[in-house]
Amino acid sequence: MHFTSEQRLGDGVLERAFALGEIPGILWTPSASAPVPLVLLGHPPLGLNRMYPRLAARARRCAAEGFAAAAIELPGSGDRPRLPAAERARADLQRAMAAGEPVTGEIIDALILPLVDRAVPEWRAALDALLALPEIGGPVGYSGGLISIGIRLAVAEPRIVAAGLFAGSFVPRAMFDEARQVTIPLHVLLQWDDEGNDRQAALDLFDAFGSKEKTLLANMGGHTGVPPSAGEDAAGFFSRHLR
Amino acid sequence: MHFTSEQRLGDGVLERAFALGEIPGILWTPSASAPVPLVLLGHPPLGLNRMYPRLAARARRCAAEGFAAAAIELPGSGDRPRLPAAERARADLQRAMAAGEPVTGEIIDALILPLVDRAVPEWRAALDALLALPEIGGPVGYSGGLISIGIRLAVAEPRIVAAGLFAGSFVPRAMFDEARQVTIPLHVLLQWDDEGNDRQAALDLFDAFGSKEKTLLANMGGHTGVPPSAGEDAAGFFSRHLR
Repeated sequence: MHFTSEQRLGDGVLERAFALGEIPGILWTPSASAPVPLVLLGHPPLGLNRMYPRLAARARRCAAEGFAAAAIELPGSGDRPRLPAAERARADLQRAMAAGEPVTGEIIDALILPLVDRAVPEWRAALDALLALPEIGGPVGYSGGLISIGIRLAVAEPRIVAAGLFAGSFVPRAMFDEARQVTIPLHVLLQWDDEGNDRQAALDLFDAFGSKEKTLLANMGGHTGVPPSAGEDAAGFFSRHLR
Repeated sequence: MHFTSEQRLGDGVLERAFALGEIPGILWTPSASAPVPLVLLGHPPLGLNRMYPRLAARARRCAAEGFAAAAIELPGSGDRPRLPAAERARADLQRAMAAGEPVTGEIIDALILPLVDRAVPEWRAALDALLALPEIGGPVGYSGGLISIGIRLAVAEPRIVAAGLFAGSFVPRAMFDEARQVTIPLHVLLQWDDEGNDRQAALDLFDAFGSKEKTLLANMGGHTGVPPSAGEDAAGFFSRHLR
């Protein structure tokens, strides 16, 4: 991993772009005298540039809690090479939705599973590199993004001790079995009136999680209308588990 | 309303027992130089004495936010005259549950509706008396207790501007229609693994609420295992809406 640029944001937050091999990423660190916990910022596959304003706002909230935050570009997003199979699945999805047809399990599997298979090892490699930095100590939390990536990471990566997930995306049926294997504390956000999301599937997924400590927080406001109070609640969750 | 005793708790909180006609109650007020908002503390029909430790803890949390808090004895509870019809319904309920039989809508209606019909006017009379005190200014929130009482109050009492409800008790079907008429901001707590509670009915009730701003917070821990973080979240809800 090498840093490619840096800038100071307000409140003493240092923002550094980095490259991990061919994967671009961003690291935000608060000014601190001792190594700090880290939150991995998940995001939808829309590209880091497009997601930057929301990621930076979440990172600054993490910094206010004394946590570093990091995001990496997902496979097939931003300037990274497209994944032809995922592009075809996305086209199938858009066609089905435009025609008012049901989104089949085959489309969801083709859209999500290859992305999970590729993204999770990349997140773990990024974690290796980030935890090697002297300013980052852990523990590590994972927050947001595609819930299937969060589930796989929560099962596969023992250094992640708590996860805040957004139940707002298509979930392959196979991920329900992985959900049962999750044991870390979870904070799951659900937009109750999310038109593009199957509420019952989200509730079933929450029920499936094996964690003894899990919280579901449902709000109104549609897919993109998560209220500011939900951010406060998530911050409270991470501050309880990463200190 | 007249005060019958008073004591100072820690942190400058004044606790006063009062009588409103034949209804006993408790008022907690923070030390403040200006009139403060008020939270009505709902509670299950187990008697104020038995509920006192939990009520006092909730009241002190309100006081820490700068809010007064008050509770009154429910009809048929504590030292108040028993309600024979409700006692019969309670016996029917216990019999059905002990026999592993379904709890019928008739039992739930007989148990809850008369209590709601009596308790809500009493809460409103208490509100008249409390808001007449110079140290209490409003706005007013309602928190906890039997959710059916909270629903009726939220519909009937325009001085209540926000309600935190606990989806942990039997709800007569008729209350679903009243729930649709609720428009104030709601914070609904659900214990996901509450053995004595019908989760799907609780989710349906949350869905029925007419409020544009409503939050469902579901946690693990069984009926009585509401985690401390849920109290923090509820405090955040009231501090957003009563200031």
